[in-house]
Amino acid sequence: MADTVDLLAGVVGARHVLSGDAVPEEYGHDESLTAPARLPAHLVRPASAAEVAGILRVAGALRLPVTARGAGTGMSGACVPRADGIVVSFERMNRVLELDPADQVAVVQPGVTLDELDARAAEAGLCYPVRPGEQSASVGGTIATNAGGMYAVRHGVTRHHVLGVEAVLVSGEIVRSGGRYVKTSTGYDLTQLLVGSEGTLALVTEAVLRLAPRAGHTATVLAPFGSAEEVSAAVPGLLGAGLAPLALEYVDLLTMAAITADHDFGLGVPDEVRDTALGYLAVVLEDHSAGRLEEDVETAGERLLELGAADVYVLPPAAARRLTEAREHAFWTAKAAGADDVVDLVVPRSSLPGLLAEADVVARESGSVVTGCGHAGDGNVHLAVFQPDPVARDTVLRRLFRAGTALGGAVSGEHGVGMAKKRYFLEFTDPAKVALMRRIKQAFDPDGILNPDVLFD
Amino acid sequence: MADTVDLLAGVVGARHVLSGDAVPEEYGHDESLTAPARLPAHLVRPASAAEVAGILRVAGALRLPVTARGAGTGMSGACVPRADGIVVSFERMNRVLELDPADQVAVVQPGVTLDELDARAAEAGLCYPVRPGEQSASVGGTIATNAGGMYAVRHGVTRHHVLGVEAVLVSGEIVRSGGRYVKTSTGYDLTQLLVGSEGTLALVTEAVLRLAPRAGHTATVLAPFGSAEEVSAAVPGLLGAGLAPLALEYVDLLTMAAITADHDFGLGVPDEVRDTALGYLAVVLEDHSAGRLEEDVETAGERLLELGAADVYVLPPAAARRLTEAREHAFWTAKAAGADDVVDLVVPRSSLPGLLAEADVVARESGSVVTGCGHAGDGNVHLAVFQPDPVARDTVLRRLFRAGTALGGAVSGEHGVGMAKKRYFLEFTDPAKVALMRRIKQAFDPDGILNPDVLFD
Repeated sequence: MADTVDLLAGVVGARHVLSGDAVPEEYGHDESLTAPARLPAHLVRPASAAEVAGILRVAGALRLPVTARGAGTGMSGACVPRADGIVVSFERMNRVLELDPADQVAVVQPGVTLDELDARAAEAGLCYPVRPGEQSASVGGTIATNAGGMYAVRHGVTRHHVLGVEAVLVSGEIVRSGGRYVKTSTGYDLTQLLVGSEGTLALVTEAVLRLAPRAGHTATVLAPFGSAEEVSAAVPGLLGAGLAPLALEYVDLLTMAAITADHDFGLGVPDEVRDTALGYLAVVLEDHSAGRLEEDVETAGERLLELGAADVYVLPPAAARRLTEAREHAFWTAKAAGADDVVDLVVPRSSLPGLLAEADVVARESGSVVTGCGHAGDGNVHLAVFQPDPVARDTVLRRLFRAGTALGGAVSGEHGVGMAKKRYFLEFTDPAKVALMRRIKQAFDPDGILNPDVLFD
Repeated sequence: MADTVDLLAGVVGARHVLSGDAVPEEYGHDESLTAPARLPAHLVRPASAAEVAGILRVAGALRLPVTARGAGTGMSGACVPRADGIVVSFERMNRVLELDPADQVAVVQPGVTLDELDARAAEAGLCYPVRPGEQSASVGGTIATNAGGMYAVRHGVTRHHVLGVEAVLVSGEIVRSGGRYVKTSTGYDLTQLLVGSEGTLALVTEAVLRLAPRAGHTATVLAPFGSAEEVSAAVPGLLGAGLAPLALEYVDLLTMAAITADHDFGLGVPDEVRDTALGYLAVVLEDHSAGRLEEDVETAGERLLELGAADVYVLPPAAARRLTEAREHAFWTAKAAGADDVVDLVVPRSSLPGLLAEADVVARESGSVVTGCGHAGDGNVHLAVFQPDPVARDTVLRRLFRAGTALGGAVSGEHGVGMAKKRYFLEFTDPAKVALMRRIKQAFDPDGILNPDVLFD
């Protein structure tokens, strides 16, 4: 152990190696509700790709497991280390290296937070339109999980914004993939393979991110519906109108009640409508022209009424902002309410009503509460499961994942598999595909030192 | 050989196996100007994924090389087979299996052409916005090369539209990846790994493609500039205006002359402007509202004049259509003019002027003609190289690729590496990255039977 410390200190400097009891508690967990916390033997804080390479060479020689860590805001335990392992924290590699308005890209280090990146982009009239709900997340972490968020229906997810990466392989080799361009057909797309690989293939030390023009005007339309199924059934019709909404969010009744109670604002919905609504659809629109936005708001309102909304409310800006914030913090609301787990299944958006109906049946039959919000435009639903008994809860989750995969969906839309959902990923994924993924893992990491407990057993 | 025929006939039926001299000449090449044609020992035409699996099992047992083939419109020789090998032609797997307006996706077999797909999408008010310039291309072929085209600046390339695939591994296992959703974070993204892999990893037998709403109105603005560099220098400024053009094409003088001569139309540009222009920027705009389109055309025109255009012409619809067609057929124009090779380098779009300036120097110093059009919005340029001497031409290409990679670009933006650009890909790609790609290839195809001459030596 003393040797390991010396070797690591030789790479990053003694100040940036913490070992044993000196490793702060926060480095043992993320925000997952179920992955047990575990502290690493060593915490290292590199300042460059070359230092990351040095760390990986040491780890490789000693066969020590390595776990990359960004801001620790993940939901699946993908940055929980092995007890004998090394956490590589990117907190010192936290700079926006370049903001390039001509190519509309940012070149960043992995430790930059989404908030910092977006603030820098704003200076150039641009934005980074990936909002997974936690703006203190690091870019590196969002690349590892392929984070999504509210704006995916318009802008896609992290994957669609990562044009290139610099990454360090376990061998210590530093490779670059992609660049400041959208088009490329020059060998396998290593960039896209690394996005979403949850720290199991290589460590990303730099990224070229695509930015979008910052629209000057936004509006939020809130539509109460008579049932949760009606909410999600309205989505295809709304998207068919060619409006390209920035966000299209399903908010169920319990969540809405919690949001409004927590925040003490009523969103202008009269009591009699609130009393009969069983679900809401929130539609966020944006445009660079105020006039066009106004037209789109009108079109959206008309369309929502045709699609069965009880009424339509254009929220005042402050209420809209608070609804978005509250929606983004729905996880914390669920956690505060005592949720035992959250799942973030994705299904074809037209299958959301079927999934929600099945979730109701599962909840009723198991004596659990299953409630949630969802990115309705993407078929990605966040269900909070209240069921303290671990065996009963496991059954609930398995029934939900079975229903979702039977509808053509997948275990996770944006939270990732990590450790928290690994057993379900392995149970509900074709074994031939898991075996292929393992061979890909081998191609990158033959000794299995990168995040060995994540994705695979 | 007789045994092989029997085994293959046992899978697809004797009618769908052609061997030796019975294999038609067209199955030995694509549209590459330089990859030598070579006919396979066998041509098989499967009707299902199960048959493809059967073929791969036969090929695996006999260690016979396998090359997948779509419509044969590729530009890099990626469907040129080994002489002792098997061509798997997808001509019988040519159906749109489903057109789903609710999820805005199409589920297709690989042999469907882009024209057929777009016609089906049109019936639902949707479009498949990937237009690599050859609408007779098969979807499978465009997935193999990650084809791009004119609309990439707005809609991205093939990669951004392939949400899921069914693919057959060399083992004969049939796997599915992705589905009717944009968001997923459930293990490695095999879909994105297969896109652009040029038939070297697995054979795609079905794809879920994302469609886009069909805008009702388009307009084309043509702007002559005083130099080629001014054309590409104007692009970032135009994109900064937030117009989201559908296409943003650089057309150089020789190409424009060839286009207008070939097609006998003048595009309304007066002779005195044509005589001083040294390059053109064609801007295609679209909208679902005629009024908004008109506003955008006006904004684009004003902006282009500010950015140095000599004048601005809004083309009448027929002329616009013919310009687009002519632009898409620029390759054929170059071929008819006797071009010896074409390159499709991609660089950051702000670096296009630098690349074009270097191309001029290279042309002058080598006594070659190097001319071309380009997807200016994407930094993707198609240069036709007129230099009959193979050694001198190789020097020209190497200088162009060296210049492009030094500017942060890559060997191919959309044509692919195939066989035609393999030596440049291997020369200008970091060996550590090539080695990693080889290990990935091994993870899929340990015996190296899938397209063994493509990408790697």
